[in-house]
Amino acid sequence: MNKTVDIKTKSIEELKKISSSLRKKIIQTVSTNGGHLSSNLGAVELIVAMHYVFNSKQDPFIFDVSHQSYTHKLLTGRWDAFSTLREYNGISGYTKPSESKYDYFIAGHSSTSISLALGAAKAIALKNEQEIRVPVVLIGDGAMTAGIAYEALNELGDIKLPVIIILNDNKMSIAKPIGAISKFLSHAMAGDLFQKIKKKMEHFLQYLPQSATYMAKKFEESLKLITPGILFEELGIDYIGPVDGHSIEELIRAYRLAKKLKKPVIIHAQTLKGKGYEIAEGYEENWHGVGPFDIDSGKSVKNDKSKNSATSTYSNALCSLAKKYKNVVGVTAAMPTGTGINRLIEKYPSRFWDVAIAEQHAVTSMSAMAKEGFKPFITIYSTFLQRAYDQVIHDACIMNLNVIFALDRAGIVGEDGETHQGVFDISYLNAIPNMTIFAPRDDESMYRAVEYAYRHEGPCSFRYPRGSFLDCNNAKNLPFELGKSQLLKDGINKTLLIGYGNGVGKAVKVAKLLKKDGLDCAILDLRFVKPIDVDMLKKLSCKYRDWFIISDSSKVGGVGSILTSLKNSFGWDSVKVTSFEYEDKFIKHGSSKLVEEYLEILPEQIKKRIIEILNPTR
Amino acid sequence: MNKTVDIKTKSIEELKKISSSLRKKIIQTVSTNGGHLSSNLGAVELIVAMHYVFNSKQDPFIFDVSHQSYTHKLLTGRWDAFSTLREYNGISGYTKPSESKYDYFIAGHSSTSISLALGAAKAIALKNEQEIRVPVVLIGDGAMTAGIAYEALNELGDIKLPVIIILNDNKMSIAKPIGAISKFLSHAMAGDLFQKIKKKMEHFLQYLPQSATYMAKKFEESLKLITPGILFEELGIDYIGPVDGHSIEELIRAYRLAKKLKKPVIIHAQTLKGKGYEIAEGYEENWHGVGPFDIDSGKSVKNDKSKNSATSTYSNALCSLAKKYKNVVGVTAAMPTGTGINRLIEKYPSRFWDVAIAEQHAVTSMSAMAKEGFKPFITIYSTFLQRAYDQVIHDACIMNLNVIFALDRAGIVGEDGETHQGVFDISYLNAIPNMTIFAPRDDESMYRAVEYAYRHEGPCSFRYPRGSFLDCNNAKNLPFELGKSQLLKDGINKTLLIGYGNGVGKAVKVAKLLKKDGLDCAILDLRFVKPIDVDMLKKLSCKYRDWFIISDSSKVGGVGSILTSLKNSFGWDSVKVTSFEYEDKFIKHGSSKLVEEYLEILPEQIKKRIIEILNPTR
Repeated sequence: MNKTVDIKTKSIEELKKISSSLRKKIIQTVSTNGGHLSSNLGAVELIVAMHYVFNSKQDPFIFDVSHQSYTHKLLTGRWDAFSTLREYNGISGYTKPSESKYDYFIAGHSSTSISLALGAAKAIALKNEQEIRVPVVLIGDGAMTAGIAYEALNELGDIKLPVIIILNDNKMSIAKPIGAISKFLSHAMAGDLFQKIKKKMEHFLQYLPQSATYMAKKFEESLKLITPGILFEELGIDYIGPVDGHSIEELIRAYRLAKKLKKPVIIHAQTLKGKGYEIAEGYEENWHGVGPFDIDSGKSVKNDKSKNSATSTYSNALCSLAKKYKNVVGVTAAMPTGTGINRLIEKYPSRFWDVAIAEQHAVTSMSAMAKEGFKPFITIYSTFLQRAYDQVIHDACIMNLNVIFALDRAGIVGEDGETHQGVFDISYLNAIPNMTIFAPRDDESMYRAVEYAYRHEGPCSFRYPRGSFLDCNNAKNLPFELGKSQLLKDGINKTLLIGYGNGVGKAVKVAKLLKKDGLDCAILDLRFVKPIDVDMLKKLSCKYRDWFIISDSSKVGGVGSILTSLKNSFGWDSVKVTSFEYEDKFIKHGSSKLVEEYLEILPEQIKKRIIEILNPTR
Repeated sequence: MNKTVDIKTKSIEELKKISSSLRKKIIQTVSTNGGHLSSNLGAVELIVAMHYVFNSKQDPFIFDVSHQSYTHKLLTGRWDAFSTLREYNGISGYTKPSESKYDYFIAGHSSTSISLALGAAKAIALKNEQEIRVPVVLIGDGAMTAGIAYEALNELGDIKLPVIIILNDNKMSIAKPIGAISKFLSHAMAGDLFQKIKKKMEHFLQYLPQSATYMAKKFEESLKLITPGILFEELGIDYIGPVDGHSIEELIRAYRLAKKLKKPVIIHAQTLKGKGYEIAEGYEENWHGVGPFDIDSGKSVKNDKSKNSATSTYSNALCSLAKKYKNVVGVTAAMPTGTGINRLIEKYPSRFWDVAIAEQHAVTSMSAMAKEGFKPFITIYSTFLQRAYDQVIHDACIMNLNVIFALDRAGIVGEDGETHQGVFDISYLNAIPNMTIFAPRDDESMYRAVEYAYRHEGPCSFRYPRGSFLDCNNAKNLPFELGKSQLLKDGINKTLLIGYGNGVGKAVKVAKLLKKDGLDCAILDLRFVKPIDVDMLKKLSCKYRDWFIISDSSKVGGVGSILTSLKNSFGWDSVKVTSFEYEDKFIKHGSSKLVEEYLEILPEQIKKRIIEILNPTR
């Protein structure tokens, strides 16, 4: 089954069997490697039927976010390799053209699919290939909340090029469904609309004779047929549905009809997330992205439960703060559990919100709350704040408001790979006037960082890693003070390690290794990159000549480059700055350790390079 | 009339008179100072009625984009000062809280208003001020195309806090209306929907007796009442309209009703852009933002028509390229005339598109076209590309596609001020792997830049200023070559001026001034900041000790900081880099010359500072 499966020659019964073995394979692999479970189990038939009706060799198959594309991968030559899912040099958890010609485009951030399909449709039209190719999109209802999906629908409904959109409606995205759109999609809503129209019609129904009752009934039936599609039809997009997203026959029928129409069409398919693995079926956000687990019990198999994640520490710290101060409010953008904001929403439902996949709206709406005197904590993964860059500049920073950006998953995120690495935030935030940028280094300093953020005047942001902080040897944590660093240790030699955020723990480790080699370094916890601690660094520039920067961030515009600019403006000519931040390349997926090893930034490797730099052999 | 006008005590007749004098004042001022004309003339009654029914002292008045807020400014204590509109230290062309307590929020980028209102509504609810305060939004139909507006509507329809949205439907935004939404809003559409529903009902209408005709008629009437609002009502937002947006009576009635509802409400008001100044009435994009003009003839009063704008040169160059190569395609995001893409759309309507205010969708859809072998030119103002930052990273750069970003209005834009300055693009684009960044310095090199962009493999971007390029003394232009700079002139002294983009012309001017003072500098046109010309700079580092950087970009992460990082990594310790880029502050509005003078970066000022640096007196 490792070659591309020729689905087209199979009978419906055979397709059902294939679906069943696909499910088994997915459950088995994810239980070992971790990955996206419930979204993939829910989409098996949708994708099997896609391959039956369409042709992924020529039709652009566009998977929104693409964390539901495992079935597609298994059907296109990656059955055996699938055991390496999300491993370093293994199969990616997302579609990836460099991995397979059957993968049309990468996708890891939500809601790009309809835009991509419209671009592909324009290309197909210009190439006169409309008779043989059509873009096919698979998108979940959760992804429909982000603005870009709507921007694309708006042009699509206007330009009317053939695009087939399979709307996978499982009544949830990652978390609980939010917003008017998801309500609209539910069956109940269709009834609501009917009620509304019926009410407006009541005033004239009285004029009708006996047949009125009959007519009203017919009218209701008629509306039921059309109502779930009205929104899309009004946007100029044909609507088919709802269809049972686990019935291969129904799906094939709907896909074929859509293909014939040669217009933009939405097929509204209803599915059950986690379908086929009972423990994961339904609304369980916990089963969206999972680590390894035991298939029988559904219990997770974690190696190390002894350490808190930085996220849970943040969540605890914010809970304490919110208890103390009533003007603490906040949002997450569809990542309540991932960011730990779920606990805040439960405790303070009138002060914390999940605004769905809507990072732009999250930032702008909270900026208005700041204007009203509240202290909003906007908790977003580093990689997703990229989606609200203009809002950070235009709504939070020009206004110089007390908006706090808590950036989770800063640095290498491991198995999710290129699309999710949180490596650019320092570079893109540092360019914005009025923004203050700092970072906690461990659990204790996270409490102090959250507390400082509350006190800070003006927009500020702090970042923390996926998983646990590295150990900082319990170095004493002072309260944060604007633009102040903390010297953790003086050194005998002229070498200074400058750590930032989770880089401090690594610096501590590197210092230990260097000590064994007889080199006694100083360690600075930089704490702030904006504003930066000029006084302290000036002092250190006299004493230490070789500065080594350790931070989970891009070299370009990152901590090293900020320090280099400073060095140049103050003329600290004797200082040599070397940065162990990430090179200017997209960073692949795999366990963080293997990825760091490849990048040569494990503590042992940094130690080695420092010694080489200090003792050049010529 | 300079004090805040107490509109509330006036009769309808008086309000009409006030509206008329507001129009006169607006036409007069804009004809002298330039500014937004047609949008302001269209919104006079909408805003007069806002001040009549609501209270801008306590109700947050939120103007989307806020280029239609002149009436509001004139009614809130800025009548006399209004003659300084858009001048340095004068009244801003946008709302600005630092200018007046009646301005709730800044806005210069589109479509943030509903988000802001929702944030304000959450704050009002938490403060228990719902009895005395309600956010009031004024938004144009054009602004409804951007995704963030929809993200906000989605949460608003769900959370149902009181927000009043006045939808100013003038059937156009800046350019011609685009997209399904604007069609939906038009009257014709309501009829279409009726036709569709009627058709679906035909199959059972036959069962009805004589009364059927009567019923059908009533049914049609009923639908006419509800259809334009269906989209919004489905999103959970009450709908009032359409109302005549130039009838103060109708508006007051609608606003009062909306206020009573204590729910999210959209008031759909229909207006005529340019109303009251006949020459500007209707669909004339030319009358959106204008320079000084003669009121009687409507003709523009330009000082200097002798020079081409960089935009028109770009537009010419792209026309030539598109003629030569069929795979050249492109988009603008609602700025067809501003970017010169209007000519391309006219000439090649199947290859160039205006996708409306939808920068995210513009970037992502064009990335798919690049994947299909096309060469898309995405032409966007520097400040607006911030709205698609994630799409540049996630869809263009990770895929390493041939997507070309042409950034208009890079550098100081003058009268539009803080929200529109194009100063961050180098900083935020430089952090992205795979991106190539370069810039033309004059009209001739613009042709070469466009031609190079076509040849380049991978994503690339180039920037150019508002208005004309500075004069570069006809220095010879070589074709662009990846990562290659061009030395325009050697110097006798150890001083090197490094210009980038429009900064080259300034460097040439500064060099001339320095020459008069006996200092003969070298001049380098850097051309590329990514990748940078290491070989050339290495050579120059031996010969020239004092490097002065001149570029229309932010110091933080800009050209100087890139060169400083380079200097550090190569150990060019003798080189001292001084940058004359913009300081880390938001830059205010005013004529570019006055603003540059304030920033001390006029050629004469730069010359003076260079001499001070080279000859420190102690």
